[in-house]
Amino acid sequence: MSRKVSVRKSVFAADEQYAFKIREMFKDKGILMLNIIGSPGAGKTTLLEATLKSLPFKAAVIEGDVATSRDAERISKTGTPVIQINTQGGCHLEAHLVWKALQDLPMEELDIIFVENVGNLVCPAEFDLGEDYKVAVCSVPEGPDKPLKYPHLFFRAGVVLLTKVDFLEHFNFDKELFWGDVKKLNPHAAQLEVASPVGKGMDAWFEILEKWLVEKRR
Amino acid sequence: MSRKVSVRKSVFAADEQYAFKIREMFKDKGILMLNIIGSPGAGKTTLLEATLKSLPFKAAVIEGDVATSRDAERISKTGTPVIQINTQGGCHLEAHLVWKALQDLPMEELDIIFVENVGNLVCPAEFDLGEDYKVAVCSVPEGPDKPLKYPHLFFRAGVVLLTKVDFLEHFNFDKELFWGDVKKLNPHAAQLEVASPVGKGMDAWFEILEKWLVEKRR
Repeated sequence: MSRKVSVRKSVFAADEQYAFKIREMFKDKGILMLNIIGSPGAGKTTLLEATLKSLPFKAAVIEGDVATSRDAERISKTGTPVIQINTQGGCHLEAHLVWKALQDLPMEELDIIFVENVGNLVCPAEFDLGEDYKVAVCSVPEGPDKPLKYPHLFFRAGVVLLTKVDFLEHFNFDKELFWGDVKKLNPHAAQLEVASPVGKGMDAWFEILEKWLVEKRR
Repeated sequence: MSRKVSVRKSVFAADEQYAFKIREMFKDKGILMLNIIGSPGAGKTTLLEATLKSLPFKAAVIEGDVATSRDAERISKTGTPVIQINTQGGCHLEAHLVWKALQDLPMEELDIIFVENVGNLVCPAEFDLGEDYKVAVCSVPEGPDKPLKYPHLFFRAGVVLLTKVDFLEHFNFDKELFWGDVKKLNPHAAQLEVASPVGKGMDAWFEILEKWLVEKRR
Protein backbone atom coordinates (compact mmCIF):
# COMPACT_ATOMS: atom_id res chain seq x y z
CA MET A 1 0.00 0.00 0.00
CA SER A 2 2.77 2.46 0.86
CA ARG A 3 4.38 1.63 -2.45
CA LYS A 4 1.22 2.56 -4.34
CA VAL A 5 0.94 5.89 -2.55
CA SER A 6 4.53 6.86 -3.13
CA VAL A 7 4.29 6.22 -6.88
CA ARG A 8 1.07 8.17 -7.11
CA LYS A 9 2.70 11.08 -5.33
CA SER A 10 5.65 11.17 -7.67
CA VAL A 11 3.40 11.18 -10.74
CA PHE A 12 1.43 14.09 -9.27
CA ALA A 13 4.62 15.92 -8.38
CA ALA A 14 5.99 15.69 -11.92
CA ASP A 15 2.77 17.10 -13.28
CA GLU A 16 2.68 19.87 -10.67
CA GLN A 17 6.01 21.09 -12.03
CA TYR A 18 4.39 21.60 -15.43
CA ALA A 19 1.49 23.44 -13.77
CA PHE A 20 4.04 25.66 -12.00
CA LYS A 21 5.90 26.35 -15.28
CA ILE A 22 2.65 27.29 -17.03
CA ARG A 23 1.61 29.63 -14.19
CA GLU A 24 5.03 31.34 -14.15
CA MET A 25 5.01 31.79 -17.92
CA PHE A 26 1.55 33.37 -17.97
CA LYS A 27 2.38 35.66 -15.04
CA ASP A 28 5.15 37.11 -17.18
CA LYS A 29 3.04 37.35 -20.29
CA GLY A 30 -0.13 38.65 -18.57
CA ILE A 31 -2.26 35.94 -20.18
CA LEU A 32 -5.33 34.70 -18.28
CA MET A 33 -5.85 30.91 -18.41
CA LEU A 34 -9.16 29.29 -17.48
CA ASN A 35 -9.86 25.58 -16.93
CA ILE A 36 -13.47 24.83 -17.95
CA ILE A 37 -14.90 21.74 -16.26
CA GLY A 38 -18.32 20.05 -16.36
CA SER A 39 -20.23 16.88 -17.26
CA PRO A 40 -20.51 15.63 -20.85
CA GLY A 41 -23.17 17.74 -22.53
CA ALA A 42 -23.19 20.47 -19.86
CA GLY A 43 -22.68 23.06 -22.60
CA LYS A 44 -18.95 23.81 -22.32
CA THR A 45 -18.29 24.00 -26.07
CA THR A 46 -21.52 25.91 -26.73
CA LEU A 47 -20.51 28.45 -24.06
CA LEU A 48 -17.11 28.82 -25.73
CA GLU A 49 -18.63 29.23 -29.20
CA ALA A 50 -20.91 32.01 -27.93
CA THR A 51 -18.06 33.59 -25.94
CA LEU A 52 -15.61 33.64 -28.85
CA LYS A 53 -18.12 35.23 -31.24
CA SER A 54 -18.33 38.47 -29.20
CA LEU A 55 -15.31 38.44 -26.89
CA PRO A 56 -13.44 41.77 -26.93
CA PHE A 57 -10.11 40.01 -26.19
CA LYS A 58 -7.74 37.86 -28.21
CA ALA A 59 -8.28 34.24 -27.23
CA ALA A 60 -7.16 30.71 -28.01
CA VAL A 61 -8.64 27.37 -27.00
CA ILE A 62 -7.22 24.01 -25.96
CA GLU A 63 -9.80 21.23 -26.33
CA GLY A 64 -9.53 18.07 -24.24
CA ASP A 65 -11.50 15.01 -25.31
CA VAL A 66 -11.28 11.26 -24.82
CA ALA A 67 -11.67 10.82 -28.59
CA THR A 68 -12.62 12.72 -31.79
CA SER A 69 -11.79 16.32 -32.71
CA ARG A 70 -15.44 17.41 -32.99
CA ASP A 71 -15.19 20.15 -30.37
CA ALA A 72 -12.03 21.59 -31.91
CA GLU A 73 -13.78 21.65 -35.31
CA ARG A 74 -16.66 23.60 -33.76
CA ILE A 75 -14.29 26.12 -32.16
CA SER A 76 -12.26 26.44 -35.35
CA LYS A 77 -15.33 27.77 -37.17
CA THR A 78 -15.25 30.87 -34.93
CA GLY A 79 -11.81 31.70 -36.35
CA THR A 80 -10.11 31.15 -32.98
CA PRO A 81 -6.79 29.26 -32.80
CA VAL A 82 -7.51 25.85 -31.26
CA ILE A 83 -5.43 22.80 -30.32
CA GLN A 84 -7.06 19.40 -29.74
CA ILE A 85 -5.72 17.04 -27.08
CA ASN A 86 -7.08 13.47 -27.26
CA THR A 87 -6.54 11.64 -23.98
CA GLN A 88 -7.14 8.19 -25.58
CA GLY A 89 -9.35 7.07 -22.73
CA GLY A 90 -7.91 9.36 -20.03
CA CYS A 91 -10.58 11.01 -17.92
CA HIS A 92 -8.95 14.42 -17.40
CA LEU A 93 -6.28 16.74 -18.79
CA GLU A 94 -2.88 16.95 -17.13
CA ALA A 95 -0.50 19.90 -17.09
CA HIS A 96 2.21 18.22 -19.20
CA LEU A 97 -0.33 17.73 -22.02
CA VAL A 98 -1.38 21.37 -21.79
CA TRP A 99 2.26 22.49 -21.74
CA LYS A 100 2.89 20.59 -24.97
CA ALA A 101 -0.23 22.01 -26.63
CA LEU A 102 0.71 25.58 -25.62
CA GLN A 103 3.88 25.37 -27.74
CA ASP A 104 1.68 25.44 -30.85
CA LEU A 105 -0.28 28.58 -29.91
CA PRO A 106 0.61 32.15 -31.00
CA MET A 107 1.13 33.22 -27.38
CA GLU A 108 2.54 36.70 -28.00
CA GLU A 109 -0.83 37.75 -29.46
CA LEU A 110 -3.14 36.40 -26.74
CA ASP A 111 -5.13 37.77 -23.78
CA ILE A 112 -7.02 34.65 -22.65
CA ILE A 113 -6.56 30.90 -23.09
CA PHE A 114 -9.61 28.74 -22.47
CA VAL A 115 -8.86 25.07 -21.71
CA GLU A 116 -11.95 22.89 -22.12
CA ASN A 117 -11.35 19.80 -20.02
CA VAL A 118 -12.68 16.28 -20.73
CA GLY A 119 -16.42 16.09 -19.97
CA ASN A 120 -16.34 14.79 -16.40
CA LEU A 121 -17.58 16.33 -13.16
CA VAL A 122 -15.20 14.29 -10.97
CA CYS A 123 -11.58 13.75 -12.01
CA PRO A 124 -10.59 17.01 -13.77
CA ALA A 125 -11.25 18.98 -10.54
CA GLU A 126 -8.28 17.23 -8.90
CA PHE A 127 -5.61 18.20 -11.44
CA ASP A 128 -3.98 21.63 -11.51
CA LEU A 129 -3.22 22.71 -15.08
CA GLY A 130 -1.60 26.00 -14.07
CA GLU A 131 -4.85 27.91 -14.67
CA ASP A 132 -5.84 31.15 -12.94
CA TYR A 133 -9.37 29.90 -12.25
CA LYS A 134 -11.48 26.79 -12.65
CA VAL A 135 -14.82 27.48 -14.37
CA ALA A 136 -17.53 25.05 -13.22
CA VAL A 137 -20.24 24.46 -15.82
CA CYS A 138 -23.44 22.67 -14.76
CA SER A 139 -26.63 22.52 -16.83
CA VAL A 140 -30.28 22.69 -15.80
CA PRO A 141 -31.19 19.23 -17.22
CA GLU A 142 -28.59 17.61 -14.92
CA GLY A 143 -30.69 18.55 -11.90
CA PRO A 144 -30.06 20.83 -8.90
CA ASP A 145 -28.48 18.17 -6.65
CA LYS A 146 -25.12 18.05 -8.44
CA PRO A 147 -23.03 20.47 -6.29
CA LEU A 148 -23.31 18.41 -3.09
CA LYS A 149 -23.02 15.07 -4.95
CA TYR A 150 -19.87 16.18 -6.79
CA PRO A 151 -18.45 18.77 -4.38
CA HIS A 152 -14.76 18.83 -5.36
CA LEU A 153 -15.16 21.00 -8.45
CA PHE A 154 -17.52 23.42 -6.72
CA PHE A 155 -15.08 23.82 -3.80
CA ARG A 156 -12.37 25.00 -6.17
CA ALA A 157 -14.25 27.00 -8.83
CA GLY A 158 -13.69 30.74 -9.36
CA VAL A 159 -17.09 30.94 -11.05
CA VAL A 160 -20.04 28.55 -11.35
CA LEU A 161 -22.09 28.86 -14.53
CA LEU A 162 -25.55 27.32 -14.60
CA THR A 163 -26.21 26.71 -18.31
CA LYS A 164 -29.36 26.01 -20.36
CA VAL A 165 -31.44 28.26 -18.07
CA ASP A 166 -33.96 28.64 -20.89
CA PHE A 167 -35.09 25.12 -19.77
CA LEU A 168 -35.60 25.95 -16.07
CA GLU A 169 -39.38 25.52 -16.19
CA HIS A 170 -39.36 22.40 -18.36
CA PHE A 171 -37.20 20.60 -15.80
CA ASN A 172 -38.87 22.11 -12.72
CA PHE A 173 -35.35 23.03 -11.57
CA ASP A 174 -34.98 24.20 -7.96
CA LYS A 175 -32.62 27.18 -8.32
CA GLU A 176 -32.62 28.02 -4.62
CA LEU A 177 -31.42 24.52 -3.74
CA PHE A 178 -28.72 24.66 -6.43
CA TRP A 179 -27.29 28.08 -5.55
CA GLY A 180 -27.72 27.48 -1.82
CA ASP A 181 -25.58 24.34 -2.06
CA VAL A 182 -22.99 26.12 -4.22
CA LYS A 183 -22.74 28.89 -1.63
CA LYS A 184 -22.33 26.37 1.21
CA LEU A 185 -19.44 24.72 -0.64
CA ASN A 186 -17.83 27.91 -1.91
CA PRO A 187 -19.08 31.30 -0.69
CA HIS A 188 -16.54 33.15 -2.85
CA ALA A 189 -17.36 31.72 -6.29
CA ALA A 190 -19.16 34.06 -8.67
CA GLN A 191 -22.60 32.74 -9.67
CA LEU A 192 -23.87 33.12 -13.23
CA GLU A 193 -26.91 31.89 -15.15
CA VAL A 194 -26.56 31.61 -18.91
CA ALA A 195 -28.32 30.36 -22.00
CA SER A 196 -25.43 30.91 -24.36
CA PRO A 197 -27.14 30.06 -27.70
CA VAL A 198 -29.61 32.92 -27.06
CA GLY A 199 -27.04 35.24 -25.46
CA LYS A 200 -28.62 35.29 -21.98
CA GLY A 201 -26.14 36.08 -19.20
CA MET A 202 -23.21 36.62 -21.54
CA ASP A 203 -22.64 40.27 -20.52
CA ALA A 204 -22.10 39.24 -16.88
CA TRP A 205 -19.70 36.51 -18.05
CA PHE A 206 -17.69 39.03 -20.11
CA GLU A 207 -17.53 41.34 -17.08
CA ILE A 208 -15.95 38.57 -15.01
CA LEU A 209 -13.43 37.80 -17.75
CA GLU A 210 -12.49 41.48 -18.02
CA LYS A 211 -12.16 41.84 -14.22
CA TRP A 212 -9.89 38.79 -14.03
CA LEU A 213 -7.78 39.99 -16.96
CA VAL A 214 -7.36 43.47 -15.42
CA GLU A 215 -6.37 41.93 -12.06
CA LYS A 216 -3.88 39.65 -13.80
CA ARG A 217 -2.16 42.58 -15.51
CA ARG A 218 -2.21 44.95 -12.54
CA MET B 1 7.80 4.28 -15.96
CA SER B 2 7.83 0.47 -15.85
CA ARG B 3 7.41 0.68 -12.08
CA LYS B 4 4.26 2.76 -12.46
CA VAL B 5 2.74 0.27 -14.90
CA SER B 6 3.51 -2.73 -12.74
CA VAL B 7 1.87 -1.20 -9.67
CA ARG B 8 -1.18 -0.21 -11.67
CA LYS B 9 -1.47 -3.77 -13.00
CA SER B 10 -1.31 -5.31 -9.56
CA VAL B 11 -4.04 -3.01 -8.26
CA PHE B 12 -6.21 -3.96 -11.21
CA ALA B 13 -5.47 -7.64 -10.69
CA ALA B 14 -6.53 -7.57 -7.02
CA ASP B 15 -9.79 -5.95 -7.99
CA GLU B 16 -10.36 -8.40 -10.84
CA GLN B 17 -10.30 -11.20 -8.27
CA TYR B 18 -13.27 -9.58 -6.50
CA ALA B 19 -15.08 -9.22 -9.85
CA PHE B 20 -14.42 -12.92 -10.48
CA LYS B 21 -15.73 -13.88 -7.01
CA ILE B 22 -18.90 -11.83 -7.54
CA ARG B 23 -19.52 -13.37 -10.97
CA GLU B 24 -19.02 -16.92 -9.64
CA MET B 25 -21.35 -16.30 -6.69
CA PHE B 26 -24.15 -14.95 -8.87
CA LYS B 27 -23.77 -17.79 -11.40
CA ASP B 28 -24.57 -20.19 -8.55
CA LYS B 29 -27.42 -18.10 -7.20
CA GLY B 30 -28.95 -17.22 -10.60
CA ILE B 31 -28.95 -13.50 -9.76
CA LEU B 32 -28.59 -11.00 -12.60
CA MET B 33 -26.30 -8.05 -11.84
CA LEU B 34 -26.28 -4.88 -13.94
CA ASN B 35 -23.79 -2.01 -13.84
CA ILE B 36 -25.55 1.25 -14.74
CA ILE B 37 -23.23 3.92 -16.11
CA GLY B 38 -23.79 7.45 -17.42
CA SER B 39 -23.01 11.14 -16.92
CA PRO B 40 -24.18 13.06 -13.86
CA GLY B 41 -27.84 13.88 -14.43
CA ALA B 42 -28.34 11.39 -17.29
CA GLY B 43 -31.33 9.95 -15.43
CA LYS B 44 -29.89 6.79 -13.87
CA THR B 45 -31.69 7.14 -10.51
CA THR B 46 -34.93 8.23 -12.18
CA LEU B 47 -34.77 5.15 -14.43
CA LEU B 48 -34.25 2.96 -11.37
CA GLU B 49 -37.13 4.59 -9.46
CA ALA B 50 -39.50 3.96 -12.38
CA THR B 51 -38.13 0.43 -12.87
CA LEU B 52 -38.52 -0.58 -9.23
CA LYS B 53 -42.10 0.67 -9.03
CA SER B 54 -43.36 -1.89 -11.59
CA LEU B 55 -40.62 -4.51 -11.86
CA PRO B 56 -42.04 -8.08 -11.67
CA PHE B 57 -38.81 -9.36 -10.06
CA LYS B 58 -37.23 -9.04 -6.64
CA ALA B 59 -34.47 -6.46 -6.81
CA ALA B 60 -31.90 -4.64 -4.71
CA VAL B 61 -29.77 -1.60 -5.48
CA ILE B 62 -26.20 -0.55 -4.75
CA GLU B 63 -25.74 3.21 -5.11
CA GLY B 64 -22.31 4.65 -5.89
CA ASP B 65 -21.72 8.35 -5.32
CA VAL B 66 -18.78 10.62 -4.66
CA ALA B 67 -20.68 12.12 -1.71
CA THR B 68 -24.15 12.26 -0.09
CA SER B 69 -26.73 9.48 0.20
CA ARG B 70 -29.40 11.34 -1.77
CA ASP B 71 -29.79 8.66 -4.43
CA ALA B 72 -30.07 5.86 -1.85
CA GLU B 73 -32.76 7.87 -0.05
CA ARG B 74 -34.69 8.18 -3.32
CA ILE B 75 -34.43 4.42 -3.98
CA SER B 76 -35.36 3.59 -0.41
CA LYS B 77 -38.74 5.26 -0.89
CA THR B 78 -39.66 2.53 -3.43
CA GLY B 79 -39.29 -0.06 -0.65
CA THR B 80 -36.29 -1.69 -2.36
CA PRO B 81 -33.26 -2.74 -0.28
CA VAL B 82 -30.42 -0.31 -1.07
CA ILE B 83 -26.81 0.11 0.04
CA GLN B 84 -24.94 3.38 -0.44
CA ILE B 85 -21.25 3.41 -1.31
CA ASN B 86 -19.55 6.81 -1.01
CA THR B 87 -16.27 6.88 -2.91
CA GLN B 88 -15.02 10.04 -1.08
CA GLY B 89 -13.79 11.61 -4.29
CA GLY B 90 -13.25 8.39 -6.26
CA CYS B 91 -14.57 8.62 -9.82
CA HIS B 92 -15.86 5.04 -10.22
CA LEU B 93 -16.90 1.96 -8.24
CA GLU B 94 -14.50 -0.94 -7.84
CA ALA B 95 -15.35 -4.61 -7.33
CA HIS B 96 -14.00 -4.83 -3.78
CA LEU B 97 -16.37 -2.04 -2.70
CA VAL B 98 -19.30 -3.84 -4.36
CA TRP B 99 -18.27 -7.15 -2.74
CA LYS B 100 -18.36 -5.50 0.67
CA ALA B 101 -21.77 -3.89 0.04
CA LEU B 102 -23.23 -7.21 -1.17
CA GLN B 103 -22.66 -8.74 2.26
CA ASP B 104 -25.45 -6.50 3.61
CA LEU B 105 -28.08 -7.51 1.03
CA PRO B 106 -30.69 -10.30 1.47
CA MET B 107 -29.26 -12.25 -1.45
CA GLU B 108 -31.29 -15.44 -1.09
CA GLU B 109 -34.44 -13.47 -1.95
CA LEU B 110 -33.19 -11.59 -5.04
CA ASP B 111 -33.53 -11.85 -8.82
CA ILE B 112 -31.71 -8.72 -9.95
CA ILE B 113 -29.12 -6.39 -8.42
CA PHE B 114 -28.77 -2.97 -9.99
CA VAL B 115 -25.48 -1.18 -9.31
CA GLU B 116 -25.69 2.54 -10.08
CA ASN B 117 -22.14 3.71 -10.68
CA VAL B 118 -20.74 7.18 -9.96
CA GLY B 119 -22.04 9.70 -12.51
CA ASN B 120 -19.21 9.66 -15.03
CA LEU B 121 -19.15 8.68 -18.70
CA VAL B 122 -15.42 7.87 -18.71
CA CYS B 123 -13.82 5.99 -15.81
CA PRO B 124 -16.53 3.52 -14.68
CA ALA B 125 -16.50 1.85 -18.11
CA GLU B 126 -12.97 0.58 -17.44
CA PHE B 127 -13.69 -1.29 -14.20
CA ASP B 128 -15.29 -4.76 -14.13
CA LEU B 129 -17.56 -5.12 -11.10
CA GLY B 130 -18.52 -8.73 -11.87
CA GLU B 131 -21.74 -7.62 -13.59
CA ASP B 132 -23.53 -9.56 -16.33
CA TYR B 133 -24.04 -6.43 -18.43
CA LYS B 134 -23.14 -2.77 -18.47
CA VAL B 135 -26.15 -0.51 -19.02
CA ALA B 136 -25.19 2.74 -20.79
CA VAL B 137 -27.48 5.66 -19.99
CA CYS B 138 -27.26 8.82 -22.10
CA SER B 139 -29.80 11.65 -22.07
CA VAL B 140 -31.16 13.80 -24.89
CA PRO B 141 -29.97 17.13 -23.36
CA GLU B 142 -26.36 15.86 -23.44
CA GLY B 143 -26.45 15.93 -27.26
CA PRO B 144 -26.09 13.22 -29.91
CA ASP B 145 -22.29 13.37 -30.23
CA LYS B 146 -21.51 11.57 -26.96
CA PRO B 147 -21.02 7.95 -28.18
CA LEU B 148 -18.04 8.75 -30.43
CA LYS B 149 -16.58 11.27 -27.95
CA TYR B 150 -16.76 8.78 -25.03
CA PRO B 151 -16.58 5.46 -26.87
CA HIS B 152 -15.36 3.09 -24.15
CA LEU B 153 -18.69 2.68 -22.38
CA PHE B 154 -20.60 2.24 -25.64
CA PHE B 155 -18.14 -0.46 -26.83
CA ARG B 156 -18.88 -2.53 -23.74
CA ALA B 157 -22.60 -1.95 -23.09
CA GLY B 158 -25.20 -4.72 -23.30
CA VAL B 159 -27.88 -2.09 -23.79
CA VAL B 160 -27.84 1.64 -24.52
CA LEU B 161 -30.75 3.64 -23.11
CA LEU B 162 -31.42 7.09 -24.51
CA THR B 163 -33.30 8.87 -21.70
CA LYS B 164 -35.42 12.04 -21.53
CA VAL B 165 -36.79 11.39 -25.05
CA ASP B 166 -39.79 13.57 -24.20
CA PHE B 167 -37.31 16.45 -24.83
CA LEU B 168 -36.16 15.34 -28.31
CA GLU B 169 -37.76 18.28 -30.13
CA HIS B 170 -36.75 20.91 -27.56
CA PHE B 171 -33.10 20.01 -28.05
CA ASN B 172 -33.32 19.38 -31.80
CA PHE B 173 -31.60 16.03 -31.08
CA ASP B 174 -30.31 14.08 -34.12
CA LYS B 175 -31.42 10.52 -33.29
CA GLU B 176 -30.03 9.05 -36.52
CA LEU B 177 -26.58 10.37 -35.72
CA PHE B 178 -26.77 9.07 -32.14
CA TRP B 179 -27.98 5.55 -32.93
CA GLY B 180 -25.79 5.32 -36.04
CA ASP B 181 -22.70 6.05 -33.94
CA VAL B 182 -23.81 3.58 -31.23
CA LYS B 183 -24.22 0.89 -33.90
CA LYS B 184 -20.76 1.62 -35.36
CA LEU B 185 -19.19 1.18 -31.92
CA ASN B 186 -21.29 -1.80 -30.82
CA PRO B 187 -23.60 -3.52 -33.32
CA HIS B 188 -24.80 -6.00 -30.67
CA ALA B 189 -26.03 -3.61 -27.98
CA ALA B 190 -29.80 -3.36 -27.58
CA GLN B 191 -31.09 0.16 -28.27
CA LEU B 192 -33.87 1.66 -26.16
CA GLU B 193 -35.53 5.07 -25.91
CA VAL B 194 -37.16 5.93 -22.61
CA ALA B 195 -38.81 8.77 -20.71
CA SER B 196 -39.04 6.98 -17.40
CA PRO B 197 -41.05 9.56 -15.40
CA VAL B 198 -43.90 9.16 -17.94
CA GLY B 199 -43.40 5.42 -18.44
CA LYS B 200 -42.35 5.61 -22.11
CA GLY B 201 -40.21 2.68 -23.26
CA MET B 202 -40.38 0.86 -19.93
CA ASP B 203 -42.08 -2.26 -21.38
CA ALA B 204 -39.19 -2.83 -23.79
CA TRP B 205 -36.74 -2.35 -20.89
CA PHE B 206 -38.59 -4.93 -18.78
CA GLU B 207 -38.50 -7.38 -21.73
CA ILE B 208 -34.72 -7.09 -21.87
CA LEU B 209 -34.40 -7.63 -18.12
CA GLU B 210 -36.64 -10.73 -18.32
CA LYS B 211 -34.72 -12.13 -21.31
CA TRP B 212 -31.39 -11.68 -19.49
CA LEU B 213 -32.74 -13.23 -16.29
CA VAL B 214 -34.12 -16.25 -18.18
CA GLU B 215 -30.79 -16.70 -19.99
CA LYS B 216 -28.92 -16.48 -16.71
CA ARG B 217 -31.03 -19.22 -15.13
CA ARG B 218 -31.13 -21.54 -18.15
